[in-house]
Amino acid sequence: MQIGIFDSGVGGLIVARAIHKLMPEYDYVYLGDTKRVPYGNHSAKVVYEFTRQGVEYLFNKEHCGIVVVACNTASALALRKLQKNLKNRKILGVLIPAAEEAAKFRRVGVLGTIGTVASGVFPAEIKKLDKRVQVFQNPAPVLVPLAEAGERARAMPFIKEYLEPLLKQKINALVLGCTHYPIFKREIKKIAGKKVKIISQDEIVPKKLKNYLARHPEITKKLSKNRKVKILVTDLTKTTDELTKKWFGGNTKPQLINLKY
Amino acid sequence: MQIGIFDSGVGGLIVARAIHKLMPEYDYVYLGDTKRVPYGNHSAKVVYEFTRQGVEYLFNKEHCGIVVVACNTASALALRKLQKNLKNRKILGVLIPAAEEAAKFRRVGVLGTIGTVASGVFPAEIKKLDKRVQVFQNPAPVLVPLAEAGERARAMPFIKEYLEPLLKQKINALVLGCTHYPIFKREIKKIAGKKVKIISQDEIVPKKLKNYLARHPEITKKLSKNRKVKILVTDLTKTTDELTKKWFGGNTKPQLINLKY
Repeated sequence: MQIGIFDSGVGGLIVARAIHKLMPEYDYVYLGDTKRVPYGNHSAKVVYEFTRQGVEYLFNKEHCGIVVVACNTASALALRKLQKNLKNRKILGVLIPAAEEAAKFRRVGVLGTIGTVASGVFPAEIKKLDKRVQVFQNPAPVLVPLAEAGERARAMPFIKEYLEPLLKQKINALVLGCTHYPIFKREIKKIAGKKVKIISQDEIVPKKLKNYLARHPEITKKLSKNRKVKILVTDLTKTTDELTKKWFGGNTKPQLINLKY
Repeated sequence: MQIGIFDSGVGGLIVARAIHKLMPEYDYVYLGDTKRVPYGNHSAKVVYEFTRQGVEYLFNKEHCGIVVVACNTASALALRKLQKNLKNRKILGVLIPAAEEAAKFRRVGVLGTIGTVASGVFPAEIKKLDKRVQVFQNPAPVLVPLAEAGERARAMPFIKEYLEPLLKQKINALVLGCTHYPIFKREIKKIAGKKVKIISQDEIVPKKLKNYLARHPEITKKLSKNRKVKILVTDLTKTTDELTKKWFGGNTKPQLINLKY
């Protein structure tokens, strides 16, 4: 059985690459719903519907033993319902691992898409772990398209604007609440300064997954170890090809699949 | 019968508003496929499939007498096939009207989404009208998200970068090949200078449609004139609501519909 990684598009490849780097021995299948990306501005109902289709595909057609939903919007708006509705399926998100890390701090900032921020899931999950933590959020609507267009230098004024209200709150940790944002980690660190701990899912999720697998031998023993990687997408364009190369690296070419809906 | 206007999202409202302003006497139904917006980075096959569903909905469920596809990506990648496959249906695009205007010039620049530019439809259509016209294209991938985020001032460096190679070619006209770009008309004019004629679909399409209706009384006589406007969307969020107000104005609230697919 493979480890499945689902994302709305190719942004999750940044986390997928980090997981693969930490545990290259397993077989991976990544599914990016590039036909319907981005999920960030959609309603909870639509995000659930899209996510369910992708995750079910990974379990039913690709026979995954475990699936990581590597999309914050999907983790925020669909994961809990999905875990409830797909019993006996192991589904992990990227949000709880980041929330667990954030709960170690007192004043936490969160950058996310409009959908993720509006859902209020980050503050809720962090406060569940420690209600004393103060959480401040700000949506960063254009960072995803800027990341995909490779616009790092020109992203600076936007990052500054998005961070300003959070920095004014004297946060001591900042959650990068979208899989695309690690692309701008250097720029964000520069603006946030050394006193703010950057919580980036490409650093946290691989460790949490490794830890989870170590604690669940009933899953781990079923996972195959052929060092194979498969990347599936629901729409294949030049951009998809280029970003896969840039963000995942190696020679794995994305393959087109059809999600029935 | 109503006049239908189809777009991948809410960007087409800019053209819809201009059409409505010129001919307020008719009844309009606008359909924005906000559930699957943006179309710009999708393959031709997917854009055709999405567009067909939206346009068929307008004819079959909303009983439109004529439909304007107010999305350049859809006009570029789907319109011809759609006109062929839905015989006896009157479907107009936004691309040909702009191409007709552009063909009056000698050196023409085109700004568009990745999908529109890659399709090569603008140069092809302009050259069909006058093969002596030289056409230069440049994709402007982040202008749509910047427009939707209301980021006009900060869009300037991007607009500069996108225009530079076109201006170097000494163009004397520039086609704004995406329904969102009129938002930046002032910024674009400032950078392009007075010598470059800006061809903007919100100015051209309404006139062409009026002209078309005048020449086709068999359609026009079936159109109802109750001054009603209906705005339908496939996903309804706060952003959809806000952009509808901003770009169409008035009190028409978008209503959620389900496109069966």
